[in-house]
Amino acid sequence: MPTAAIILAAGLGTRMKSALPKALHPVAGRPMINHLLGACEQVFDRIVVVVGPGMPALERAVAPHATVVQGERLGTGHAALQAAPLLRDFPGDVAILYADNPLITVPTIRRLVARRTEAGLALLAMRPADPGRYGRVVQDAAGHVARIVEWADASEAERAIGLCNAGVVCAPAVDLFRWLDAVGNDNAKGEYYLTDIVGLAVAEGRRVAAEEAAEAELAGANSRAELAQLEAGMQARLRAAAMAGGATLTAPETVFFSWDTRLGQDVSIGPNVVFGPGVTVEDGVEIRAFSHLEGCVVRSGAVIGPFARLRPGTEVGREAHVGNFVELKAATLAEGAKANHLTYLGDVTVGAKANIGAGTITCNYDGVHKHRTEIGAGAFIGSDTALVAPVRVGDRALVAAGSVITEDVPDDALAIARGRQATKPGRGFKGKKGSH
Amino acid sequence: MPTAAIILAAGLGTRMKSALPKALHPVAGRPMINHLLGACEQVFDRIVVVVGPGMPALERAVAPHATVVQGERLGTGHAALQAAPLLRDFPGDVAILYADNPLITVPTIRRLVARRTEAGLALLAMRPADPGRYGRVVQDAAGHVARIVEWADASEAERAIGLCNAGVVCAPAVDLFRWLDAVGNDNAKGEYYLTDIVGLAVAEGRRVAAEEAAEAELAGANSRAELAQLEAGMQARLRAAAMAGGATLTAPETVFFSWDTRLGQDVSIGPNVVFGPGVTVEDGVEIRAFSHLEGCVVRSGAVIGPFARLRPGTEVGREAHVGNFVELKAATLAEGAKANHLTYLGDVTVGAKANIGAGTITCNYDGVHKHRTEIGAGAFIGSDTALVAPVRVGDRALVAAGSVITEDVPDDALAIARGRQATKPGRGFKGKKGSH
Amino acid sequence: MPTAAIILAAGLGTRMKSALPKALHPVAGRPMINHLLGACEQVFDRIVVVVGPGMPALERAVAPHATVVQGERLGTGHAALQAAPLLRDFPGDVAILYADNPLITVPTIRRLVARRTEAGLALLAMRPADPGRYGRVVQDAAGHVARIVEWADASEAERAIGLCNAGVVCAPAVDLFRWLDAVGNDNAKGEYYLTDIVGLAVAEGRRVAAEEAAEAELAGANSRAELAQLEAGMQARLRAAAMAGGATLTAPETVFFSWDTRLGQDVSIGPNVVFGPGVTVEDGVEIRAFSHLEGCVVRSGAVIGPFARLRPGTEVGREAHVGNFVELKAATLAEGAKANHLTYLGDVTVGAKANIGAGTITCNYDGVHKHRTEIGAGAFIGSDTALVAPVRVGDRALVAAGSVITEDVPDDALAIARGRQATKPGRGFKGKKGSH
Repeated sequence: MPTAAIILAAGLGTRMKSALPKALHPVAGRPMINHLLGACEQVFDRIVVVVGPGMPALERAVAPHATVVQGERLGTGHAALQAAPLLRDFPGDVAILYADNPLITVPTIRRLVARRTEAGLALLAMRPADPGRYGRVVQDAAGHVARIVEWADASEAERAIGLCNAGVVCAPAVDLFRWLDAVGNDNAKGEYYLTDIVGLAVAEGRRVAAEEAAEAELAGANSRAELAQLEAGMQARLRAAAMAGGATLTAPETVFFSWDTRLGQDVSIGPNVVFGPGVTVEDGVEIRAFSHLEGCVVRSGAVIGPFARLRPGTEVGREAHVGNFVELKAATLAEGAKANHLTYLGDVTVGAKANIGAGTITCNYDGVHKHRTEIGAGAFIGSDTALVAPVRVGDRALVAAGSVITEDVPDDALAIARGRQATKPGRGFKGKKGSH
Repeated sequence: MPTAAIILAAGLGTRMKSALPKALHPVAGRPMINHLLGACEQVFDRIVVVVGPGMPALERAVAPHATVVQGERLGTGHAALQAAPLLRDFPGDVAILYADNPLITVPTIRRLVARRTEAGLALLAMRPADPGRYGRVVQDAAGHVARIVEWADASEAERAIGLCNAGVVCAPAVDLFRWLDAVGNDNAKGEYYLTDIVGLAVAEGRRVAAEEAAEAELAGANSRAELAQLEAGMQARLRAAAMAGGATLTAPETVFFSWDTRLGQDVSIGPNVVFGPGVTVEDGVEIRAFSHLEGCVVRSGAVIGPFARLRPGTEVGREAHVGNFVELKAATLAEGAKANHLTYLGDVTVGAKANIGAGTITCNYDGVHKHRTEIGAGAFIGSDTALVAPVRVGDRALVAAGSVITEDVPDDALAIARGRQATKPGRGFKGKKGSH
Repeated sequence: MPTAAIILAAGLGTRMKSALPKALHPVAGRPMINHLLGACEQVFDRIVVVVGPGMPALERAVAPHATVVQGERLGTGHAALQAAPLLRDFPGDVAILYADNPLITVPTIRRLVARRTEAGLALLAMRPADPGRYGRVVQDAAGHVARIVEWADASEAERAIGLCNAGVVCAPAVDLFRWLDAVGNDNAKGEYYLTDIVGLAVAEGRRVAAEEAAEAELAGANSRAELAQLEAGMQARLRAAAMAGGATLTAPETVFFSWDTRLGQDVSIGPNVVFGPGVTVEDGVEIRAFSHLEGCVVRSGAVIGPFARLRPGTEVGREAHVGNFVELKAATLAEGAKANHLTYLGDVTVGAKANIGAGTITCNYDGVHKHRTEIGAGAFIGSDTALVAPVRVGDRALVAAGSVITEDVPDDALAIARGRQATKPGRGFKGKKGSH
């Protein structure tokens, strides 16, 4: 049977005090809604996202999935109903999920959908460590859901129930929209609550099933503090996976992964390492403390950091070394190349076993265009050298320390470009009274 | 009714093993006692600080508040009594607080003072998660304090009491000093305990009221480990306030604020960012990982880091960018200026939309004096350039990469100052046997 | 009575997914087995390590202690038995410990050995917060160990026992090897279990004593996640010791020590500081955030960081300053010297009160050899200077900013080595359309 999902993403997240729609706040380097979409795409045949008015960035972020706009914010039931024009005649089950649930996993969604086949309506429930003001799931003797009671309306006995409603539901489209049509707004806030469909299903004599899931998967974020908790939950998951896969994290709690970081085996990661999106690290790589990587590939056996920054478009070759206070941007280092100290390599190709001295700066930008620098295999770039692109330093070429290289250096040639030293006796430093 | 505070700050903090008086150890970049003074100044009309002998730095830190010296350390009661010459005739209430309680809040102090009006003596009490060896507050049937029982003297039943004495008291001056005069030292340590005034008040038939406060506010520090816990408590408070105010902290536990950090809305702060004192960050600023800021203003929409250091006297303009391994000291960057890579800008003014190339170094110090560098609007400083101050690079001027600029460059001019390149065929790098 | 230890280190740690033997995975910068050996060397007269086949690196790591190879992995009992050729006739007690117990302390090991004198066999037991699937220690009415029951075989009542077997035992050699010879492999896995000697001892009527130790000391590591927990346990211990000794750690949880870090009193360590092996820090030193130190000595009153890297062979003198984005390698800075900004000093001696300007780079490597740079006392190295080693800058010499120094500079002399500036009106920056 085909399945579809409605994702509610119209929330402004007022308590976040942000101009950014809540669904676009990132977790592990990716907007929350894209985490959820990534999971839903593995389960559902069709996805419709309910957005708020004036959220073009959100519409772009969820493309190519269809969006519908909830013009007024009249509650979750009203939000879900906006998808009716697209899904009312959908010949299968429709689930409703929330954009700020980025930690929900594919197996959990699959369990919800499977559970639906045993009941007229399935919902996700959880047992939070602190149930607080969640709505409680009241079950009958057979374990079926009798009703959801909101915290405000709950008796003491009902408040003692540990099973809480997570708000995620799944039902046949034909039933779901009939129930949504019937939901009223006769309550304190005058809103249409999605939860009310549970009562409508029960009233029709349908079985309602509660599928339990871990609280951590169903955590949402209505504030920056809760967003930080989602981030922490996601990072915990990513760190555990990295270690299970054979990486050593000296201090896992200080390593921040992107959702898509790929690590090989016997990778060693020191304290305080940050991964932006798009990083692949091969086997046996050592990433030392205080390193920052994004959009790059690090080949087997390379050593990175401490204090290294790899920016997008960078590839560090096998056994290559990138050391402290070194920035690489769109730089390709071949096998065994070294750039160990205070260096900026931007738009550069470095040949195998080339050595880039301390304080090397590629001058890749003329204010309008970026230009490339090529450094040949086995070349030796003396320290404190500027390479003014476009320029090529040949294989096995030698650039003298302190040079400003503006012309190509042929293979096997020496280039030197610096002022001549003048030494003047007796004119040394007399300013000993100064302080720094 | 006027109110006064006596702050006990004579402690050496022997277990801290420090030459610094305990009250001067910093929390969130500010000496502990100054946190407490900051709160007390909002509540009390007069403040007297009891210091130990030979603590001139502490006396300076608490100025202009009056100090009295406790010559011998004979207990808290004796310490408080040193303030008698200044406060015995004070026509109102006097509270006694502790210099190592930097987390106590103004509302809590106000509640203590207000509570005093209902009783002859008010004290702060708390319910610690682990009551340990705190003195227990024994209450009578009416909820009034019957007595404080020290842990060593307490029965099992008394030790089971959760309410503990925090040591902070408030009473009319006339009563307080009469009781302090009456406190004896007939105990194991031969000390005069402030706590004993509770018994004296009760003996006089006065009502004693216990005002409860959160344990976190009343935590003290007798060791470096406890000091670290105070720091953690203060940081938790600052982080929560930052997020509640609309800042995203990817990993709040890795961001360290100063007590006075000011953040705008939709500020994004990556992992591992440290704020020293005196930082203001406007709306929409992004501060990336591994950044260190102190004494600076960052204007709206600017992007800082990763690996950026902003030192005192720096102002980063709207939409300006400061990138990796860049240090700014007494530097003003106008709107849209960029300094993105391995750069030191000290004592510098940079005009709007100027571009500072990688590896730019301002040579601002001649060993005796600091000199300023001015860079005009729209100027382009080529990479790996030294600017020898005092020097001015004009608006829209262009400095060629690798130059050492010692003379002013007029508006719209080009300056170049580097050696000529010599290239010698066949004299390339032959040292392939070397290892780095 | 002489004592010996057998350390079981043959484990591959399959779940660690590593090519490195489990015992060699480091904790606080030192292989796990070396932590254990360090403790054992203080207690035992002789140590034999049981390694697996093809572990030459492990054999080197434990030298000069004897090793025996367990050719097949047939269980802990079988592993211990491999030491029989060396220890069967040992005239005293033999303890058996595990290479992945790096947190076990000398007092605990001594208590085990002492306890053995009261019983025929002593073992270490613990009361884990979560006893999980540990074997339970069943005691008789007198408190002696009746038997060890494995979790799989335990009744509900036995599983409720909190005291768990840590696997560490001690017995006279003559008994130990007789029991090991008698252990069988008639069980599900067909392995020889060391634990079975407890039953054999009891069957012989020997008294078996359980010595309790803290769970934290007896934690092992079978996965990278557990290894990270060992690291966290060791760091907690090192941080507590640092603070107890009189160091301020602003954020202890972000400071990573090496097992051998030595700190003086009134040392202040900011957030995010990483120590590699071999660091000594004297009294009154301030180490600011984001610093990375290994193999160096920092003398009294020096200031390091933020963003400083001290590499092996470095000595920072009294009151010397090393600032941001500065790397020191085999560098000696005398008293009061300063290198505060974007500098690489490799193979350098810097005299007292010398000032190293921003952007100074020592060119110490010619691709084959490293050469030394000497900078005299009171010398002033202008900013953005390259020092091409071998070279000497004399006392009180002055090097002009932007110079490339290739020849020695005598005491009191001035050296300048840079291109002459040419300024060309009207040829300024016109490329305002570019983006960076």
